[in-house]
Amino acid sequence: MNKIIDGKQFAQELNTNLKISINQLEGKRKPKLVILQVGDNPASNKYIKNKLNACAKVGIIGELKKFEEEISQKKLENEIIKIIDDNEVDGIIVQLPLPKHIEEQLIIDLIPAGKDADGFNPQTLGNVMLNNSKIFPATPYGILKLLEWKKIDLIGANVVIVGRSNIVGKPLANMLINKSATVTICNTKTKNLKDICKEADILISAAGVANLITKEFVNNNMTIIDVGANFVDGKYCGDVDFDNVLEEVKHITPVPGGVGPMTIACLLQNTFTLYKEKENL
Amino acid sequence: MNKIIDGKQFAQELNTNLKISINQLEGKRKPKLVILQVGDNPASNKYIKNKLNACAKVGIIGELKKFEEEISQKKLENEIIKIIDDNEVDGIIVQLPLPKHIEEQLIIDLIPAGKDADGFNPQTLGNVMLNNSKIFPATPYGILKLLEWKKIDLIGANVVIVGRSNIVGKPLANMLINKSATVTICNTKTKNLKDICKEADILISAAGVANLITKEFVNNNMTIIDVGANFVDGKYCGDVDFDNVLEEVKHITPVPGGVGPMTIACLLQNTFTLYKEKENL
Repeated sequence: MNKIIDGKQFAQELNTNLKISINQLEGKRKPKLVILQVGDNPASNKYIKNKLNACAKVGIIGELKKFEEEISQKKLENEIIKIIDDNEVDGIIVQLPLPKHIEEQLIIDLIPAGKDADGFNPQTLGNVMLNNSKIFPATPYGILKLLEWKKIDLIGANVVIVGRSNIVGKPLANMLINKSATVTICNTKTKNLKDICKEADILISAAGVANLITKEFVNNNMTIIDVGANFVDGKYCGDVDFDNVLEEVKHITPVPGGVGPMTIACLLQNTFTLYKEKENL
Repeated sequence: MNKIIDGKQFAQELNTNLKISINQLEGKRKPKLVILQVGDNPASNKYIKNKLNACAKVGIIGELKKFEEEISQKKLENEIIKIIDDNEVDGIIVQLPLPKHIEEQLIIDLIPAGKDADGFNPQTLGNVMLNNSKIFPATPYGILKLLEWKKIDLIGANVVIVGRSNIVGKPLANMLINKSATVTICNTKTKNLKDICKEADILISAAGVANLITKEFVNNNMTIIDVGANFVDGKYCGDVDFDNVLEEVKHITPVPGGVGPMTIACLLQNTFTLYKEKENL
């Protein structure tokens, strides 16, 4: 039995199905995603390139709007409003981080829920909490899809989440609560982290600390979702001491090739959902 | 040492301080809260009367807008929009439940975040999740104030919440996560509820089940917040088997006189916060 959850494979399946759906939109305009970038951060450039490539593969029009590093808050807001008003734009994402002189939350709040492909807008997040949203922050959405793909039972499952960020831990907790899981959210102040993790049916680590989760944190029936994206000695790795944990658990996502590919796939799903809502499909 | 947390006393203190603040608004208009009611539900009538009395005591103008049971969705929405547009209205609350032919969530969503005294609007709840709100759903807000009043440490505390409603369990979980507590949210599907509760530093029961929490669920260092509002043989009681649990725990809220009075006090706090935001105070 293969215990490794292959996020890359499942992301490709989702993308293939999305491509088919978009191809079937005969005579209609294609969905369009605009990525906003301020400045020229090399890491951002790489992420943006991946997103634009992913759009191209499924038939979503991906467009980069790049503004100079020195743009003022006011001017940036005005430019964004023009993009929001464009009827042919279905989804907008703001590539973070923004330069320090820009108030990030004000920019994120500007993107209306109806074009919020990242699912970071407060209204979107409130609807996620209320179990009343079709759009979800992309990483939690990808995690939920992976768990459902592997038919891992969520009802009554004891889920432990390590990390409480606005883009992973907190929205994911709300989504899993809505799926009738028993959810525990830990943070850096948590006492007895090891003991809490060890009791989990599903352990989701989004702490950003390499080798945080060792085999002392796990049990034989556990599914581990590793959301970590860390670099150690130039090597990309997650939060889990993968080699030593692998034999001790039931299911585990690798890094790379686990949650990462799902995040971009779910960004595309969100864009298509926004398109369908807009076009009443 | 008195282990009973006297919510009634603390609510009165908050109300007295609020009254002083409002009295000091010399020459300015008073804050105004509008309560929307559809139909003539006797329980609603009683709750509304309590809210209006509370407004009067602190100097908030409380106004009831009562619509006939048969009003259409469209007409109700139009009437609400008029109230929203009234510059002298600071807070609006929708008294639930609404008649069955009315789509409740659409009505709640109509109240803009800037007048959302109940804190039930998705945008408000999203900002609560993001730790970026001055308005909170009144019951969770009251619970947090009680814990802070009693100087109960939240950082790293093991908090267990029983119940995951949109108005108590879920927003409260997000608020406590933002206070650096380790939070576990249980529901009716939770396995081993007793064992999970027994490990808590703070146990918050919002299940709506009388006598759910017995002395087998508690420990000597525990603080219990009882959010239950149940009627058993005509007697009003919480979720906790109070008489048998009292001696076994460190702190406990009674029912009545615990969380209940805090809910109305926090509704008034929200109204005053909205007023100050509106008047740039």
